[in-house]
Parts: sequence; structure tokens; C-alpha cells
Amino acid sequence: MDLEHMVVDMCQAAKTAARGLATTSSQAKNEALLKSAAALRRESQILLAANAQDVESGRGNGLSAAMLDRLTLTEERIEDMAKGLEIIVDLPDPVGETVAMWRRPNGLEIGQVRVPLGVVGIIYESRPNVTADAAGLGLKAGNAVILKGGSEAFRTNGAIVDVLTAALGEAGLPPAAVQLVRSTDRKSVGVLLQQDRFVDVIIPRGGEELIRAVTEQSSIPVIQHFSGLCHTYVDAAADLDKAMRITLNAKTQRPWVCNAMENLLVHQEIASRFLPPFVETLEQAGVEVRGCERTRHIVPHVTAATEADWQTEYLDLILSIKVVDSLDEAIGFINDNGSGLADAIVSEDYTNTRRFLQEIDSATVYANASTRFTDGYEFGFGAEIGISTNRLHARGPMGLRELTTYKYLIYGDGQVRE
Amino acid sequence: MDLEHMVVDMCQAAKTAARGLATTSSQAKNEALLKSAAALRRESQILLAANAQDVESGRGNGLSAAMLDRLTLTEERIEDMAKGLEIIVDLPDPVGETVAMWRRPNGLEIGQVRVPLGVVGIIYESRPNVTADAAGLGLKAGNAVILKGGSEAFRTNGAIVDVLTAALGEAGLPPAAVQLVRSTDRKSVGVLLQQDRFVDVIIPRGGEELIRAVTEQSSIPVIQHFSGLCHTYVDAAADLDKAMRITLNAKTQRPWVCNAMENLLVHQEIASRFLPPFVETLEQAGVEVRGCERTRHIVPHVTAATEADWQTEYLDLILSIKVVDSLDEAIGFINDNGSGLADAIVSEDYTNTRRFLQEIDSATVYANASTRFTDGYEFGFGAEIGISTNRLHARGPMGLRELTTYKYLIYGDGQVRE
Repeated sequence: MDLEHMVVDMCQAAKTAARGLATTSSQAKNEALLKSAAALRRESQILLAANAQDVESGRGNGLSAAMLDRLTLTEERIEDMAKGLEIIVDLPDPVGETVAMWRRPNGLEIGQVRVPLGVVGIIYESRPNVTADAAGLGLKAGNAVILKGGSEAFRTNGAIVDVLTAALGEAGLPPAAVQLVRSTDRKSVGVLLQQDRFVDVIIPRGGEELIRAVTEQSSIPVIQHFSGLCHTYVDAAADLDKAMRITLNAKTQRPWVCNAMENLLVHQEIASRFLPPFVETLEQAGVEVRGCERTRHIVPHVTAATEADWQTEYLDLILSIKVVDSLDEAIGFINDNGSGLADAIVSEDYTNTRRFLQEIDSATVYANASTRFTDGYEFGFGAEIGISTNRLHARGPMGLRELTTYKYLIYGDGQVRE
Repeated sequence: MDLEHMVVDMCQAAKTAARGLATTSSQAKNEALLKSAAALRRESQILLAANAQDVESGRGNGLSAAMLDRLTLTEERIEDMAKGLEIIVDLPDPVGETVAMWRRPNGLEIGQVRVPLGVVGIIYESRPNVTADAAGLGLKAGNAVILKGGSEAFRTNGAIVDVLTAALGEAGLPPAAVQLVRSTDRKSVGVLLQQDRFVDVIIPRGGEELIRAVTEQSSIPVIQHFSGLCHTYVDAAADLDKAMRITLNAKTQRPWVCNAMENLLVHQEIASRFLPPFVETLEQAGVEVRGCERTRHIVPHVTAATEADWQTEYLDLILSIKVVDSLDEAIGFINDNGSGLADAIVSEDYTNTRRFLQEIDSATVYANASTRFTDGYEFGFGAEIGISTNRLHARGPMGLRELTTYKYLIYGDGQVRE
């Protein structure tokens, strides 16, 4: 069978499976997840063997040490995958939740009820744990999942999906509920992205290049996660201890993630008190500081920030600092330069804080807390399928609920339209 | 200025206007809507004069009588536009609604709050009332609106938008909140559809061809309204009076709209009692009936339905009838052949009704009511910007709420991530 037929058949089978999954009880889905977790543990030797082959090829193909590390499975990482599935079991099932229900004057009762999205395509790079994780989240929300992992993890992903589908079958769920595109031919992705008859949404997980390529090729809606160019604004009325703690955390706790701070704005009234000790602390933490002219007037030894610096997501221990005249300037700067993902104000002033929260047009806006909390787990979703930088459907951290849509159920007793 | 620059500048101005509108009070937005309504009434002679020119050109270009009728403004239709805006004033403002709020163990309070989508592009055909209607709904939900009407209504739409923007200015809102692409060059649409930096969503209103063309060209998410191939299933346990009333209404009350019934399924046990009187009633109402073999066994004079009939949205007084063996067959048939917009069961049986509501994968699923209620007004939304056949973001009738997204406001007192 050629590649195109193979992918189309998978998508069609997924659509059929999705129809059954939509009305599968939470109990049955949880049972399948528990059996999957047990199977991952039981078959760990098979997984490790498949992974060893991928790692060997990867080494031969000159993968970097970091990529090899991400690719490598260990008993511990398999245990983490299994535990991840068990955690999903404990999350409430979003399917069937009544979002709203009301009665019309003519007696019709209209209920808006959550239902699965249908078929979810997930395209991802390297880490094989995404395979189990995405399959588990998709399944719990009643969706059929089509996975397309990176070619470097081809055998590992295949082995994981084999284990999962066997477990689904054992639990009486359709094996087509979790499928892997078993091809390293890039064309397979192109074919998948055109199956809008069968696939309801595509979630790419990876770098900006991957997401752009997927978006360009796709006739299916894509949930995008573009860059996180996050700001913190230290207001004139900031509590300096909080400002220090929050900004240091936002920059240094995990600088390579999307919700880490890239630009710091400081109100002019507080800059000369805040910046000297803060820059010292940053530098002790290994951060390279770049500053606007006014910043460099206060801490002369820092590098001059260029125009490009304000718009660069370094994902590294680099911070650009700008002194601003006012809250208005800070808000304007963030709305113009930020990526709309996560921005914070540090202030004890009620009106300034309220204005910042209202006027900053970002998925997550913070008062007196670190931007690092933009994360499904930290939001209490119990899991995260990704963080959306789209405005439609899902915005910000996505949990199980964001893997659902809704339908309206209308209860009548003979109503007709006049 | 060339076409491309003109459109890009409009989109950029809309983005800026949207930022201001996002925090504009409901009061100010309502004031602008009331002034717009008053201005439409006051300037009716200008609107009628512009419209007369469009109608004359249309006649010259050979527009059909139906299209000319849709295009023609009258004092009464202008009054309806003005009243339409006043009705929007009375609707609750969706912006600022707190969808949910919760406290995390670390003391962070997270609120999910509705905010405008941003910039909404609306591409539509003929009826000039859409101009005022879409502008009003977009504005009330805090969005900037870019309108692209049909070229046959070029002068009329221009005159309406002139009146509206003057009224916005009077009310102190940015005139760029409502803009019209003033070009009959089709390329202008192509340029608009590539402005994903500035425009957040495209809503095409018109035929399937328009929607497909827009979707193919757009790098911006498109809310689609494809066909409505709606079914009613008359169960073995149906109350025959209700069945008669509901199905007749679904077929004949307004056959040319998307929520009218196209296919009727009847359980075999009830077919011989239901079909003879029902087909007679249908035929008296001018409906052409086509039937499966078993239907024709009961009412032999009806035309044989072909395979294509089950998948055709006639939008006309034509109905295809199929006798089915079981509820399962009905559900399978509807999920396979329907368009997922609106489907109904007529039954007094609890379990069958419950199964139908759960298993039919459509935006609106009815028990004992006409599919004709799939409509924003009938749902109690007070207005309708369209009906979505997408599964993401909005599904089914769209009111003001569907013109919003959300953001998270996070209130802390110094929290940092460990």
C-alpha cells in the first residue's frame, strides 16, 4: 500500500474509532489507561531494546549529546511514562460536563455539553515520552489520536504505540484510537495535514520552524505555540523585595522555557534604587544584562541593548532592561513587543495593577507573581497538552478541557418554529 | 496608494483600534451603537441615493430579480437596520465576564475572563443590512471590524460605513473600529486574508463557494458555515401528532435555510401508519417526495430516491424519506450522511431519545422539536453573527460570546516557581 493510502486509511479508521470513544464511559477509558501503564512497565525490555537501536542510529547520524539524551529511554523514564498515564486516570473527565443549560420561553430546554474534539493529530519531535503522554490525554478526553513523532525516535515510538494499542484492545477499546504514522518519509506529514474530512485539529509540538511548516501545509485547524517573549514591569509602587524575587525567578529558574522573562521594564522613579542591587544579583546568577541608555546611566557597566534585543526570545541567561517613564509606556511597550503569552506587573498600587491586568493583551497576565506559572500543571489542570498562542478555541495552557468541543442538546415536547 | 498598502494599513489601524476597544466600557459602546442607529435614520436619503446607483448598475449587469431585491434598500429596511443596532444595545456585554476563578494551593488566584477576539474580518455577499449588523455585533463584543461586502453593493456599503464611522467618532470611539475594504478588485480579499499579524478571525457569510475560496486563501483562522444536511428520525415510539407537526415544520416552514430538514428517517414499525397521511400532507404543502424502496412499498406513487439524494442539500421543497430497521441504523445513517448541523429524533421512548442525543455527533441535536430552532435568536442569544460548522472555537449558532476569547488574570503576592 502506498504512503498516501496508508495515512488516509489511518485517518478514516481514527474517525470511526472517535465515534465510539465519544460515548465511552470514563470508567472504560480509565481502565484502558491503567492497562496501558501496566503494559509499559511489563514490556519495558522491548521498549529499551527498540530505543537502543534508535540511539545507535542517532549516534551514527551525528545527533548532539542533548538530542541523544532526550531520545534515550531508561527504566526510570518508562516508569515516569506509566505514572503519567496513572495521573491522567485521576483527572476528571471533561466529556459530558454541562457548560450551561437554560429554558426558552417556548419551553425548549437547551443544554450546552462538552464532547470530544474527535480526531487529534499530534506532530512532535524527539522525546518519546510525548507518545504516551499525548495518547493518554487525547484518549481521556474521548479523542482518537494520530501521532507523528520524529524520525530519530521511529522504533521507540513504534514500540510504545504497539504496547498501548495492545492494552486498548485488552480493555475493549478500538485499537485505532491511538495510531502512529509509521513512516520517516516527510510526505506522510503532508498527507496527514490534508485529511480535514477525518482529522479535527492538529497540535504540533516543537520549534517554531516545525509549527510554521505545519501551519502552512495544513487544511486542518492548527493549535500553535509560537514564541514566548515575556515581560515583567516593576512599577514605581513596587515592593522591592517582591520585585527582586519575582524577576529573578522569571529569568533564572528555567531560562530556556517559553514563560521565562526576556525583557524587564522598570519605572524611572524606582530604577536607581532597584537596578544596582538587582543587576548584581543577576550577574551573580550568571545572567548577561543588556540595558537601555537610562539603565546604563544607573549601572554603567552593562552592555547596550540594541533594537533587536527587545524582540528576541533568548531562552538563555540574557536579560534586556529598559527604564520607562510611566505605566502607559510599559503597557504600550509590552503590547507592541511582547508575544502575548505571559507578562507581569510588580506593584502595590491598586489602580496601576488593575490597569495592567486589563490593558495587557496576553494569554496570562500576572500581578505580583512570576511569569513561570504559565503552565497547565501550575494552573491546576493536572496535565498539559501544550500552551496555545492562538486566540481562538484555546488560549494559554491547555488541559483536558481544551481537547473538547461542545454540542447543544435541545429537549422539546413538540415545539415547531412559527 | 496601491491596493495592498491600503488593505494592510486598514488592518493595522484596526489592530490599534481594537486595543482601545478592548477596555472601552459597555456604556460607551452602547452610546456609539445608539448614535449609529440615529445616524442611519437621519441619513436615510443619502443611503437610498447610494443604493439607487447600485441597483441601477446591478440591473445593467443583469442581476437576477431575487438578487436585486436583496440589494435594494427601502426606508423600512433602513429602519430595520437601525432597530437591529438598538437591539444589540440591550444585549449583555460578554466582555469582562468571569468564566471561572479558582485559588491554587500556593495562594495564586487565577481568573479566566472574557476579552474581545480583536480584529474580525467579515466577508459577505449582497444584503447591505449585514454591514450594519456585523459592525454592531463586532463592536459590542469589543472588536474592530473589517468589512468586505459584495461589489454589487459597493456604494451602499460605503454609505452605510460612512454613517457608522461618523457616529463612532461622535461617540468618541476610534473610527478605525469599523472599516470597509473600498475596492471591487478581488485581489483586496487576497491581501486581507494574509494579514494574520493584525486580523484574528475571518467570518465569511455566503455560499459554499465563497467559504471554500476564503478558507483556501486565508492564513487567518476562518469560521466556516458549510452545508446543513439535516435529518429527522421518527422512532417506533414516536407520538405521531408530534412527528407530523415537527417534520412538516422542519421541511416547509422555510425550506431554503440551512436548518431545514432534507432527509427523513422512519422506523419500520411505524412507517405504514405514519407515511401515508404524512406524504399526503407534504404533497398538499407542495413538497416533492422521494423515497427508498420500502417507502415506495408503502406510498408507491413517490419518486425513487437515488444515492445522491441522501447527500444533497436541496434548500427547496424536496424531501427524501428512508425507512430504517432500527435506532442504530438511523444513528449510523445520520452520522455518515449528515452535515453535523442539526438533527432531531421524535420519540416518547426514554432510552432511544437519550441514545440519539448522545450518539449523534452534530452541533445541535433535538428531541421532539423542529431542527429549525438552530438559530442564534431562537437559542436566546438575541443576535446571530452566523452558524459555525467548525468544531473548534464556536460550534452551532454564534452570538456575541462567540466573538470573544479569554485571558487569564493571575493575582499573587510574591509567588515564585520552585
